[in-house]
This record gives sequence, C-alpha cells and structure tokens, in this order.
Amino acid sequence: MLAINRDEDVFLYRQVIDLIADNIATGTLRPGDRLPSLRKMSQSTGVSVPTVRQAYIELERQRRVESRPQSGFYVRPQAANDIVYPAPTSKGKPVCLNCRSLMERVSDGVNHPGLVPLGIANPSMVKPAAKTLHRAMKRVMARAEERSLSYSSTLGEPTLRRQIAYHYLDTIGAQVEPENIAITNGGQEALLLSLQAVANAGDVIAVETPTYHGLLELIDSLGMLAIEVETCPEEGVTISELRRVLEDHPVKACMFSTTLANPLGVTMPEEDRRRLVAMIDEFDTVLIEDDVYGDLRFDGCRPIPAQFLSNSPRIITCGSFSKTAAPGYRIGWVVTERYMDTITRLKRAFSCSSGLIQQLTLTDFLASGNYNRHLKTLRPLLKRNADRMSALVAEHFPAETRTSRPVGGSVLWLELPKQVNAEQLFDDAIAAGISIAPGQIFSPSNRYTNFTRLSYGHPWTEKTENAIRWLGQRVTELS
Amino acid sequence: MLAINRDEDVFLYRQVIDLIADNIATGTLRPGDRLPSLRKMSQSTGVSVPTVRQAYIELERQRRVESRPQSGFYVRPQAANDIVYPAPTSKGKPVCLNCRSLMERVSDGVNHPGLVPLGIANPSMVKPAAKTLHRAMKRVMARAEERSLSYSSTLGEPTLRRQIAYHYLDTIGAQVEPENIAITNGGQEALLLSLQAVANAGDVIAVETPTYHGLLELIDSLGMLAIEVETCPEEGVTISELRRVLEDHPVKACMFSTTLANPLGVTMPEEDRRRLVAMIDEFDTVLIEDDVYGDLRFDGCRPIPAQFLSNSPRIITCGSFSKTAAPGYRIGWVVTERYMDTITRLKRAFSCSSGLIQQLTLTDFLASGNYNRHLKTLRPLLKRNADRMSALVAEHFPAETRTSRPVGGSVLWLELPKQVNAEQLFDDAIAAGISIAPGQIFSPSNRYTNFTRLSYGHPWTEKTENAIRWLGQRVTELS
Repeated sequence: MLAINRDEDVFLYRQVIDLIADNIATGTLRPGDRLPSLRKMSQSTGVSVPTVRQAYIELERQRRVESRPQSGFYVRPQAANDIVYPAPTSKGKPVCLNCRSLMERVSDGVNHPGLVPLGIANPSMVKPAAKTLHRAMKRVMARAEERSLSYSSTLGEPTLRRQIAYHYLDTIGAQVEPENIAITNGGQEALLLSLQAVANAGDVIAVETPTYHGLLELIDSLGMLAIEVETCPEEGVTISELRRVLEDHPVKACMFSTTLANPLGVTMPEEDRRRLVAMIDEFDTVLIEDDVYGDLRFDGCRPIPAQFLSNSPRIITCGSFSKTAAPGYRIGWVVTERYMDTITRLKRAFSCSSGLIQQLTLTDFLASGNYNRHLKTLRPLLKRNADRMSALVAEHFPAETRTSRPVGGSVLWLELPKQVNAEQLFDDAIAAGISIAPGQIFSPSNRYTNFTRLSYGHPWTEKTENAIRWLGQRVTELS
Repeated sequence: MLAINRDEDVFLYRQVIDLIADNIATGTLRPGDRLPSLRKMSQSTGVSVPTVRQAYIELERQRRVESRPQSGFYVRPQAANDIVYPAPTSKGKPVCLNCRSLMERVSDGVNHPGLVPLGIANPSMVKPAAKTLHRAMKRVMARAEERSLSYSSTLGEPTLRRQIAYHYLDTIGAQVEPENIAITNGGQEALLLSLQAVANAGDVIAVETPTYHGLLELIDSLGMLAIEVETCPEEGVTISELRRVLEDHPVKACMFSTTLANPLGVTMPEEDRRRLVAMIDEFDTVLIEDDVYGDLRFDGCRPIPAQFLSNSPRIITCGSFSKTAAPGYRIGWVVTERYMDTITRLKRAFSCSSGLIQQLTLTDFLASGNYNRHLKTLRPLLKRNADRMSALVAEHFPAETRTSRPVGGSVLWLELPKQVNAEQLFDDAIAAGISIAPGQIFSPSNRYTNFTRLSYGHPWTEKTENAIRWLGQRVTELS
C-alpha cells in the first residue's frame, strides 16, 4: 500500500480511491467496516475534505462502499454478479441520439411476430386478465351501447380518473384529486405530453443511464438533447451526480424512473427521492417521473412516487396500464396540477382524447377489485420467470457475465464479457428467431456496447429456455 | 356607370371590379353572360391584363362571377344565402394562434355532457353501427382472446391496413400499398405525425380559411406559424391565392381539406386538385391532406384525394373512422410513401402504437361489408338533418343570415348579421344549454367574428329544433 503522493501525476481523488480499494483487496477493510470519516481521512492524507468526499462517492458509485445516513461510508458486502458500469463516453455533455438506425432495427426486430420475444419489456402474460377484461368490456357494450363508441372528453372518463385516484389512495395512501389526472394513449403519450408541456426543441433533458430507449427516441423526436446522469445499480439516480449535472447544464427537465427503472430494475430509496425532489425545487427545474412499473414489485410493496413525497408543483408523474393489464388498450395517465391546463391543450391538439371503450372497461376492472386480484396473480408469475431466467443465464452464459437482480418488473439487465458487441448479438439472435434489446439503445451515447436486456414478461415455454441457452452459447463464442 | 379614372385615388383593379359589379347590378350583364375577355377589357379600359385578371379573380372570390376552363369568366346565377367573406385581417402574414383562451372555453363547452351538442362536428349518430361493431368486437375477443390485449405493431394491424387499401380501391379505384398506410390514434394524431415529419418549430404552415380549429391548435402546439389562404365557398382553396402565398412566404407545408372541408363543407374540383398538386411540386413544399370526411358525401360519390391524382411523393393523406363509424375508437391513418420511415419513428416515440382491439374490430367491420352498408344508412340521415337544420335557420334567423349548402359531412356554416359577435352568442348559448362553435376559432386571426358553425351530425330531437329556434331568436336580439 502506497501513501498519497502529491507530486505524482495522478489525481488526488483517484489516489484516495486506490488507497481504499487496496485496503479492501488486502482485507484490511472488510465488508461492513466503516471507512475513516472524511475529516480523519483528510487529516491523515493531507487531501482536502471535498476531494475525499469525491473519492468516497465514486467508490459508492462503483458499489464498493455504501453510505448510511448520519453515519458514514461502509464497505459493502461483495455479491457475485454485481454490474459495474463502463465510464461515460460522452464526458457529461448533452447529446443527440446516436443510435437511430439501431433503434429502427431493434424495433423492426422485436415487432416481428414469429420471434421468441425477449426484446419486449411489457408483460404479455395477460391470460389471467383476458377473460375478466373481456367480460368487463361486454358489460360496457351492453350498458353504454351507443355512448361507448363516441368521443371521450379530452382528459378522459371522470369515472376512470376517480378509480386511478382511488388506486393511489389504496396502495400508497396518497390523496390525488381526479381533476389532476389526465388519461393518455398509454404511458408513452403521457411522457410526450409532459415533456412538450415543459420544454422546447434545443432544450437539455436529464435522463438516468441506462434508460428506457423510448424516452430517448421521444427526446430526439422533439429536437431536444439528452444528458446522462450516472446511476447506481441498487439505488438508481446518484444524487451527487445529479447535482453536478444541474450545476453545469441548463437542464429544462429530468425524466427519471424512480421505481423499477427500465432496464436496471432499480428503485430509488425514499430518502433519495426526497433529496431528488428538494434538488428539483432548488434548481427550479421539472421532474417527469416515469412510474409505469410501480404495481409490479414482487413483494407488492408499492414505492411512493416522488410527487407524493412533497408539495412541489414541479413534478409530473406518468402511469400506465400497459405493463400490468392491457398493453393493447393504450391507456396511461399523467398526474399534475400545475401543468394540467397546458397538457389539456396539448392532448386536444395531439390526439383529441383517448379510446373510450377501453377507459370504461378499465373503470369496471378497477372498481370491481379485479385489477388488484390480477396483480396478485401476476407478480408471482413474473418472479418465477425472473428466477428461472437468472438461473439459466448463470448456467449458460460465460462466468464473467453479470446480471441485475430484479425485485419486480419484467426485465433482466446483463453485462456481457467486454469483447461481446451486443449489436452483433442482436443481429445473430434475430437470425436465430430470438429478439433481444441490445445495450446500445439504452444510452444516447451508445455506451452499453456489451450489455443486453432480456424480458421475462412473457409466458414461459420451452422456446424461452432454448432461446436463453442459444444466447449463452453465442455470447460464449463471441467472447 | 363610370369609366376608369387613372387619376382617381382608388386602385385600378378595384375600379374594374366596380365597373363589372355595376354592370351586373344594372342588368347589363346578366347571370350566364360572358365577361369581356381579359385582353379586350384591357384594351377598352387601358388597364393592364394582369390587373384585369386580378379584378376578375377577386370577383370570382366574391362569387359574383365564375371561371370556366378554356372559356373565360361568366356572371354567376345569384343564389340566396351566399356567404361573402370578410376581408383578411392579418394582411397575409404568418401568425400565431390568437384565440387560445376562446378555444379552451369552446372545448370546455362542447365537452359538457348536458348540452345540446351543436358545437361538435363529428356525427354521433352511431346507433346504426353500434350493434354491428359490438358484435364484431365480441367476435374479436372470442377469436384472439389474449392477443387482442397485447401491443399492436407500431404502424398498426396489417389486416386493417389491407382493408383500408381495399376501401380506396373499392371507392375511387386507387391502388394504395398497405405498407404505405400507418394506423394512428384518430385523424388528429395522423395530422400531428404528418406535420412533425415535415416541419419544425418556427416554420410557416399554409391553411385554408376558414379551417378546422384542431389544425390551428396543432400548429400552435408545435410552435409553428399559420398563414391563411383565401378560399371560395364553392371550390375551396383559391389556387391563384395559394400561388401568391407560396411566392411570398417560405411555406414548409400546406394543410388543406380537399373534400367537405370543415367548416365550409366545400370540395375542391378535380381540376383544382391537379393544379394544387402541380403547385406543391413546383414550390417543392408538402401537402398534408385532411381527408376525414370523404366517405360522407350525401350522393356517395367519393372525390379522389389529391394524392391519387399524381405521382408526387410530396403529399400525405390523413384519414379516420371518427367521422363515419366510431369516434371513441380513436383510429385514423396516414397514407405516404416518402415519409413513412419518419412517421414510423415518430409514431413509436409519441404513442408506441394504436389500440389493437379496435383495429381488429374495424377490420371485421370493413371486411364483412358492414362499413359500406353503414355508410349507406348514415348518408341519408345526415342529409335529412342538413335539410331540416337549413330550413329552421332560414325560418328563425334574421333575413341577412347566409348559410353554406352542404353536400355532405355534418356541419352548417353560418354568416350572421355583422353586428353579431359569435363569442357573445357562444356564451349566451352555453348558458342556455346549447353548444355551438363560434367563427373566431376557425381562423388564427379571429376574423370570422360574425360566423358560427352548427353541427347536424347528432340524432335529431325536439331539443335540436328548440335550440335552433333559441339561437335564431338570440341572433335577432343581438343584431
């Protein structure tokens, strides 16, 4: 172990990182041990407190240590298969989408009906819900015969907006006014309306990295720029990184998924959500919260969207029934008070209103309690698929492969050996009748070249298992 | 009658107009008479040929004369109730939408469920279709149980795209490739995707005047500017006016309704469509053709959209089932070859895909021949309502009131006495439980202050008749 050397041509904070890392590697610092306090470390090394803090935060980002509120930094237990991120390639600058053509190809691929659909994130395990929803729709047709064909009002059916408000009350005890809920054409239009309401072409939008590719395509389509905010695979958006980005760039809005983010599957701790909201207020920016997976935690404990942890009017929450009940209904929603007038105008101009018969059907589905019953059936199915897929990956992929460990949602995020190009793997997989989502599309700067996302949200069949085996084999060949 | 006076402080072309008008007024020129040729008139008055042409075109715009191809200008038979337009107030400059708050109020008003719905343009006379569509939807649920809940592909169900292509073949003999059809969330999203595909914020978009208010809100929402092109109440967009606008302004796209335009109900003659397309090519701009009323001509003769009269790739045609079958299904479409890749990307980014179960239901509705049968029932119902409404307006409104004479669609356009402010009438009507669409919202420059649009596309009841009587009474009081 070397002492800090002020003359050496290595950043001091990097030397502090190496010092701690060496101590962990040699066993001087063991899992659970507390790191020297910032002040103590500063005194013993002669490095300033802010620089030591910077080093500790980087170690936290690398998941070697963890911070505990009001206590300090601790060495983390090293689990197998922890994902380590590649360093940012965009050097923290706002960028245009750099993988349009790949997105096109992936979209063509995943939409191909004959393929094993490991590339699509939504659960297609709708069988448990299908009969119930169909019965509800037949009731709607009988009850509201002509009306069910006519226009819904711009913001959607009042009855559905009330049911969604009730669902928030029921699951997280939050009071939402139905008039602050606008029904949209799925979660994607919810994101579109929210973003267009607060930003213009040329504006900079902060996204977590990796992030949902549909968000990047949306930002690109509106002529805006994306800037990536580093995340931690266990806690989501790194708050200190977010501060750096907000200090350095004129960020018009942050678009984050705070719960079961796609593709990481990570959920921000409540403490971090509160810090996030405070920072949104401090920098007078806007948070558009993509919360479409909230109902899919395996343990059924729905985290509270950031909006309901504060009184800040600067948060817009987007929800959807596409990931939980009926993707093809195209029904999502937006929760906001401050931006509701603008969103009303945009909704009218962009698509008039959303489909009425589906709204009436979902109203029945929620009001009857069938939606909650359906979730209770769906969650263990998803968990079983997640376990099966993780086990098969561990068995058939090269040993260096690391995977996320989902606690909900429908996707697994894989870090493949460095040599593997996920785009190549995608092409090979499509040729073999399997769709996957290559890592590149989850970042505007293409950085996740050796990552891929696999969806387990589909009925599990022998084909699924064979596909995973085939992928493991192919990754082994490519690495 | 006065001779032309070159010294007088009146534009020469205005003097030519007065000369002809006086001759008509005194009976020297009678309906059907041919006007002196441009050359002859130029010789006899000493005014240049272009100035005489300008005067004749203005007379045509005022509907006092009409041009006959390869023949000349003729005095028109004077019918009662011909609408004369107010002069442009924007002096032909591109403008931002100037009536946002009124649009908001109108939208709130027309969406109010308890009102007599004369403000909404879509036919809600869906009763004849309701049972058939419901039966089709039940068949879909039985046949495609789980699939009917899953995502449609981005561009929509191949079966529906084929049925729409077949409908074009069937009705106008046009060959459309199904892969050049993209399914959208109603006609409004079709317009959104088309416009966003070809223009950016700050661009100038040409619209006919008066025009569909939803188009103006769309242009406004995307930060674009609208420039109005004068129309003639019997032939739609005036081609010579369009040339002037295209010569004077960098028009990125024209958004015109070539068939049964809303609110005028006017249809461009085929000859003019061809000239329109040639001009789009000449100026290298784009035509976005709003063709959502094409199936609703009372005589069932579907005019050919401009796109199919040419090989120009610069035309995008937007269609919809909202005005003919099921507004609440939110299913429309775009026809284009050149812009299909861009529209695919935008559709994915803006709303993923459109509702699947409605697409499958409409496929069944079209394939079974039920859609055509439904149109055959709907058209005479609409015609009967149009006749009833026109008769009641003639009976109860002041004598100076002029009305359009619809040959299809579902709206009547009224010119009220000059003193009547349609916004005032709207407020009074809402208070009396009646929704109407005030003229102001049909122009970005608010020019139709004494116009209003009434919809007859709803089941005819005693309430409808009482509402028209009430409106006539109120207009009389206000004038």
